[in-house]
Amino acid sequence: MPSLDPLFQQLAFLKEIDRLKNVMRQSPLLDRSRRENSAEHSWHLAMYAWLLKDYAIAPVNLDRVVKMLLLHDIVEIDAGDTPFLIETAREDAAAIERAAADRIFGLLPSVQRDEVMALWMEFEAAETDDAKFAKAIDRFQPVVANAMTGGGTWNEFPVTEERLLVRYRAELERGAPALYQLAEQWLKSYFEAKRRIDSPS
Amino acid sequence: MPSLDPLFQQLAFLKEIDRLKNVMRQSPLLDRSRRENSAEHSWHLAMYAWLLKDYAIAPVNLDRVVKMLLLHDIVEIDAGDTPFLIETAREDAAAIERAAADRIFGLLPSVQRDEVMALWMEFEAAETDDAKFAKAIDRFQPVVANAMTGGGTWNEFPVTEERLLVRYRAELERGAPALYQLAEQWLKSYFEAKRRIDSPS
Repeated sequence: MPSLDPLFQQLAFLKEIDRLKNVMRQSPLLDRSRRENSAEHSWHLAMYAWLLKDYAIAPVNLDRVVKMLLLHDIVEIDAGDTPFLIETAREDAAAIERAAADRIFGLLPSVQRDEVMALWMEFEAAETDDAKFAKAIDRFQPVVANAMTGGGTWNEFPVTEERLLVRYRAELERGAPALYQLAEQWLKSYFEAKRRIDSPS
Repeated sequence: MPSLDPLFQQLAFLKEIDRLKNVMRQSPLLDRSRRENSAEHSWHLAMYAWLLKDYAIAPVNLDRVVKMLLLHDIVEIDAGDTPFLIETAREDAAAIERAAADRIFGLLPSVQRDEVMALWMEFEAAETDDAKFAKAIDRFQPVVANAMTGGGTWNEFPVTEERLLVRYRAELERGAPALYQLAEQWLKSYFEAKRRIDSPS
């Protein structure tokens, strides 16, 4: 029988999420020494949101945004990381992630489970200003990593410039237009340089 | 000449702190596969603080506590991690960390630099309720890691049970008494088991 003491339920959850430190993403560290894991990524996103909150599409509640970003990848413990640059069947991924949320958030006492679940669903839906900004930050940080590492994952996936711009715009511009402008600039520079290398005149 | 555009100053800082992902701590991951780095540790602490805030010595402002925990280890990029179980000359460490804070936080626009610096100094001083609780969380998470991995770093440093209890009490009990009670219980069980192994009857 599981303990009904809230502290032990909270500790069971906090122990379980230690596993996020072993979920590997595609994005490189800036020194290119290895790929990033989802726990340190989540920390970095919280710092991004804090320091870049003035670029949000509308005034946001930073504390809610930070909470969303701290928890948004926890479902990957069961579901794994779905690289943004791979366009998978979204229905499947959503169902697997929802089951992961039920299992992992379900370790918490019910009041906290409900709070965490609601924030995660709000982030996934990306309809509130807080969630739109959080999503934009989640897209923007890997763009910085790519721009600073000679292209990063842009080198690894067969995605066209046009398609990438459409997809970044969809999530980045609606949450943080100024950051989208910068991302677009970097992406265009990357593809321009790539074209010059591929077909030198 | 460095750019005076705040966004580029913020990005310079956010790029610099990527290096925290390569600062290694003594504490193991719970699956014992490797040691923890300071970036993923900071993420985990923010989650601990969020979910365990009801155990704080006094009502705390969670958002300030989370910010303190997100930033508290950034100085380690220059200063390295000082393991809690090694009792070094504190004067030296404090001066090195202060210089690190000046350099790294100094990358930010001045308003944000001042906010981050003030929060970091408040954390270090550990006098406000928010900082006392943040410190307690920073002590408690490695205790959980040790308790769940057969002793973890307690096996690696020649520290007595009495000395450990004194040091944990000093920082843990004043920020989160209930968490100290649990830590004390785990620590005593660990040393009791160790004595039984060292001198079987």
